Amino acid sequence: MKAYKIPEATVVRLSIYSRQLSNMRKAGVETVSSEEIANSVGVSSAQVRKDLAYFGEFGTRGVGYRVDDLLGNLTKILGLNREWNLAIIGAGKLGSALALYEGFRQRGFSIKAIIDVDEKMVGQDLAGVVVDSLDKLENLIKEHDINIGIITVPAMEAQRVTDRLVEAGVAAILNFSPQVLRVPPDIVMRNVDLAVNLKVLSFNLSHNS
Amino acid sequence: MKAYKIPEATVVRLSIYSRQLSNMRKAGVETVSSEEIANSVGVSSAQVRKDLAYFGEFGTRGVGYRVDDLLGNLTKILGLNREWNLAIIGAGKLGSALALYEGFRQRGFSIKAIIDVDEKMVGQDLAGVVVDSLDKLENLIKEHDINIGIITVPAMEAQRVTDRLVEAGVAAILNFSPQVLRVPPDIVMRNVDLAVNLKVLSFNLSHNS
Repeated sequence: MKAYKIPEATVVRLSIYSRQLSNMRKAGVETVSSEEIANSVGVSSAQVRKDLAYFGEFGTRGVGYRVDDLLGNLTKILGLNREWNLAIIGAGKLGSALALYEGFRQRGFSIKAIIDVDEKMVGQDLAGVVVDSLDKLENLIKEHDINIGIITVPAMEAQRVTDRLVEAGVAAILNFSPQVLRVPPDIVMRNVDLAVNLKVLSFNLSHNS
Repeated sequence: MKAYKIPEATVVRLSIYSRQLSNMRKAGVETVSSEEIANSVGVSSAQVRKDLAYFGEFGTRGVGYRVDDLLGNLTKILGLNREWNLAIIGAGKLGSALALYEGFRQRGFSIKAIIDVDEKMVGQDLAGVVVDSLDKLENLIKEHDINIGIITVPAMEAQRVTDRLVEAGVAAILNFSPQVLRVPPDIVMRNVDLAVNLKVLSFNLSHNS
């Protein structure tokens, strides 16, 4: 079970701060205030200070934060100071798009396996990873020490594939299928349902006046 | 500005309930209890009742909810009793995957335009929609009465494209680029940053013990 009590929205913001700090460092910025971080992200500076305060005291009053130090701390907090091994299950359009998404590799997420049931996909190369067949799933998870499984199979296949990933030792699931998936409580799970995102927009548009 | 105070997590759950109810109706189920809805989604029945209570009294004590009625009410609440017109800006792998995503069309989201700056993409057919060039953006938004713009362009292009969409009259933005986008307060905005999703998983994995 989870031992922390950090709101998910805070974790999402921390990951956005880390991206902005990374951009600042590339631009040669050495120190930054909470106001400057806040402005670059579009939240209040009080929110930035509150989010960081969960993890300690990082800045100096009147001076602000050293970009290098704060980025290093956020990298550790987010668990990005190590490599995570990913498997993508389902090499259709979405799975292929994710396999080619540069933002993963840049941040320590390494796609080690891509798996599909379609024999026409098996053997194809997606950004340097060759698509393997579904019957190899368990072997690939173990061989590549996969931590995170990304589900891009059709809804009716999603639970079965998830069960196999969990059984094979995956610790987290990123679910792109519209299916609600059941996992044991020690498995970390996050749903990215593209239609849900549009429904939330639809709700907000309908109640926007 | 927004006049409602419904938590976003509630809206996300309502959209999941509506999907489950739709599946139940297809399966011939006529009445359902909050416990049955809760079990199908993986939340508590108290959560289901609380989420629905924002919008009124839909069930009958001891009987439960009529699937048809509750689904109809959720459809109206979510603004899904009308068609929303979408434009996808950026016809790369991700934009193409979204254009072909069946879950959109099934729920009243109609992709009316796909726009790309790459002349090699222009003229290609993606699920019945022909890719148009970026200089047609304003005309296409007006011609097709586009409500929602989906941003799948590279980060450095995202703000400029968003400004043009807003200027042309789009009411909502679904942002798949890693860029934080600035929009006027009356524009509905939702970010789907795929790397942020992985960072949240990474955080949870690092603090999972």
